Amino acid sequence: MKETTGGLETVKGYRFSSIKCGIRYTNKIDYSIIVSETMSNASGVFTTNKISAAPVKICRERINNSIKAILINSTNANACTGDEGYQNTIKLTDDIAEKLGVKPENILMASTGIIGRQLPADKMLSAHEDLVDSLKPENGATIAEAIMTTDTFPKQAAASFTISGKEFNIAGVAKGSGMIAPNMATLLSFIVTDAPVDRSFLDTTFKKLIKTTFNAITIDGDMSTNDTAIILSPVSEKYYSSETELSDFLKALEFVMNRLAELLIEDGEGATKGVKIYVKGAATDDDAVLISRAVSESLLVKTAIFGNDPNWGRIACAAGYSGAAIEEKKLSIYLEDKPLFLNGKPTDIDYSSIEEILTRRNYTITIDIGLGTGESYMFTTDISYDYVKINAQYST
Amino acid sequence: MKETTGGLETVKGYRFSSIKCGIRYTNKIDYSIIVSETMSNASGVFTTNKISAAPVKICRERINNSIKAILINSTNANACTGDEGYQNTIKLTDDIAEKLGVKPENILMASTGIIGRQLPADKMLSAHEDLVDSLKPENGATIAEAIMTTDTFPKQAAASFTISGKEFNIAGVAKGSGMIAPNMATLLSFIVTDAPVDRSFLDTTFKKLIKTTFNAITIDGDMSTNDTAIILSPVSEKYYSSETELSDFLKALEFVMNRLAELLIEDGEGATKGVKIYVKGAATDDDAVLISRAVSESLLVKTAIFGNDPNWGRIACAAGYSGAAIEEKKLSIYLEDKPLFLNGKPTDIDYSSIEEILTRRNYTITIDIGLGTGESYMFTTDISYDYVKINAQYST
Repeated sequence: MKETTGGLETVKGYRFSSIKCGIRYTNKIDYSIIVSETMSNASGVFTTNKISAAPVKICRERINNSIKAILINSTNANACTGDEGYQNTIKLTDDIAEKLGVKPENILMASTGIIGRQLPADKMLSAHEDLVDSLKPENGATIAEAIMTTDTFPKQAAASFTISGKEFNIAGVAKGSGMIAPNMATLLSFIVTDAPVDRSFLDTTFKKLIKTTFNAITIDGDMSTNDTAIILSPVSEKYYSSETELSDFLKALEFVMNRLAELLIEDGEGATKGVKIYVKGAATDDDAVLISRAVSESLLVKTAIFGNDPNWGRIACAAGYSGAAIEEKKLSIYLEDKPLFLNGKPTDIDYSSIEEILTRRNYTITIDIGLGTGESYMFTTDISYDYVKINAQYST
Repeated sequence: MKETTGGLETVKGYRFSSIKCGIRYTNKIDYSIIVSETMSNASGVFTTNKISAAPVKICRERINNSIKAILINSTNANACTGDEGYQNTIKLTDDIAEKLGVKPENILMASTGIIGRQLPADKMLSAHEDLVDSLKPENGATIAEAIMTTDTFPKQAAASFTISGKEFNIAGVAKGSGMIAPNMATLLSFIVTDAPVDRSFLDTTFKKLIKTTFNAITIDGDMSTNDTAIILSPVSEKYYSSETELSDFLKALEFVMNRLAELLIEDGEGATKGVKIYVKGAATDDDAVLISRAVSESLLVKTAIFGNDPNWGRIACAAGYSGAAIEEKKLSIYLEDKPLFLNGKPTDIDYSSIEEILTRRNYTITIDIGLGTGESYMFTTDISYDYVKINAQYST
């Protein structure tokens, strides 16, 4: 596989369009559509929040159908909008289906923005002609821009790969939000490929990679009402299905998802650092997940990272309240390869020997629980605003 | 019962002392002792963090003994300090026991401050003579000051009450920390009374009231390595034990604990508001606790409170990811008595009619889950620093 420049437009078989519909603001590109020229198979991962947005409900109902298009709007989440919100999604996808000559069940929708306000459905319906008329294969980059909310730059990634000697492409876009993501950071991501990949392989692989990419950065990736990640691969008479022939596809997919995750971290609100929290030696993998999440989410750990403060005490404390099995005397904490806390005892490592690491933009903190073989990792950012100065400077 | 002015010094039978020992800083009162002239029975509530400080371990071992004194230091938590840290606590309490003519098992200790550094035990030991020599009944106020870390003012509360026509006193001090308390906000609280209350009544009552006072404000009160709340009541030949005769004591105890909790909220780092999150109609009480915690902890809810933003969508979202049973169509959210979201639908309440409430320092948000009779409440603060402005202004 090879990284390629550009975004969705590098993938054959899809057309894209984005317009300024005026859903909430007058001068923001806020309404988009991704159309599969034939039809596509899809896999999707959605929020686990019990309050989910109307478009998420629609996606859950339709994700196993053949998909013709994904309708996407920003600035309004269409969440907590009751039956009216649900019916609005139905209306919009019905109308697009008609304009594209397919059935409503072939249309997905995703929304992001403010919760609890009804979509201006009539305004959006009257923009559909324009939206469909503007469809072009080269409009891929508009999607990355249209889905932005508090993001400061559009996020896209693309790669080429081969299956049995034949070249294909894959590309994706994503939006994150705010603080990557103590909570409610809506993640939207759309990935398309022109390779006809076996549907069940696509589904399994996508869901597996979500765990180590998007869910490893959004920390509480299950929290927003609107989280949606969808991949499309064309319907075909014949599919590639063997792991061996799909090994390069797998690498390309992982590359695209990893790259999008990195871009989301990089755009964390005010973040100056991206730090990998790697947990090993936990009693179980589940315990390792609990610990990496608790440490990644800890405001005091995040402020210490901002303050270049090797405050392993805050890390130990977060591990201690994570709910996972912990024995203080078996716990060790490393900054890169430098032990800060070893088998329950502070080391006498001096600040000058680790300052260079602490001031890097990216580094790894390893937490060895010393109880088993469970492992997990999570990426976190610092919090770099004034409010945290009190905490950041607490121990230095 | 009647609120009284002053603090610990209003309670007969105890002596207090606080000195500048130089544990971490040269000019901070950092080392204190509370001495019971006779002996006292105690009840204590301690952190549930799996990494707990050495003094917490000692307290757990000794809390059921007759207690002569509580030794307290600030600026160093003596947590994650291994055997050496534990032995330091032993040394210090051994020495104080000898100086007070009791056994080590009669001495408790509490610490707060930085994690992972050894106490300067020799320096502290050599200060013990001074500490004991300075013991006076009128020194109660020094304790409230000595235990402060990032607190901006000392916190104390006192009340008088009667049992069978006889007048008694109760008083307490507390320290909170930082942000009340996304995590690791160490809570220390010491309460003394001169009424000989039946030991098991004292224990049950204190533990029950902790839930609705300190644990209702610290949000994750179980998180710090050092959380400690202790109450002392004199050992006696005869105890008051019937609920009827203790009803005024109960009121006074609840008043003191509530008042201390309020002061902790008021001193939340940079907080401009204290808001009660009241959950009712949950499927179970446990579900109500999950919801009130999730909402209280949500950074986006806190920033909305700061921004005077009636962003009930963020509240619904936090309820949705709390893990509790939620049905969107049965969910209602009120600002005081004004419905913002009613049975799954946004109301068309206008901002002008609720602005007065949103700009108050204190108000109540009620979340009616509509599924059962479970209820719970939690107090939360806003977050008022620059970093949150982006979020605070997101929906207005």
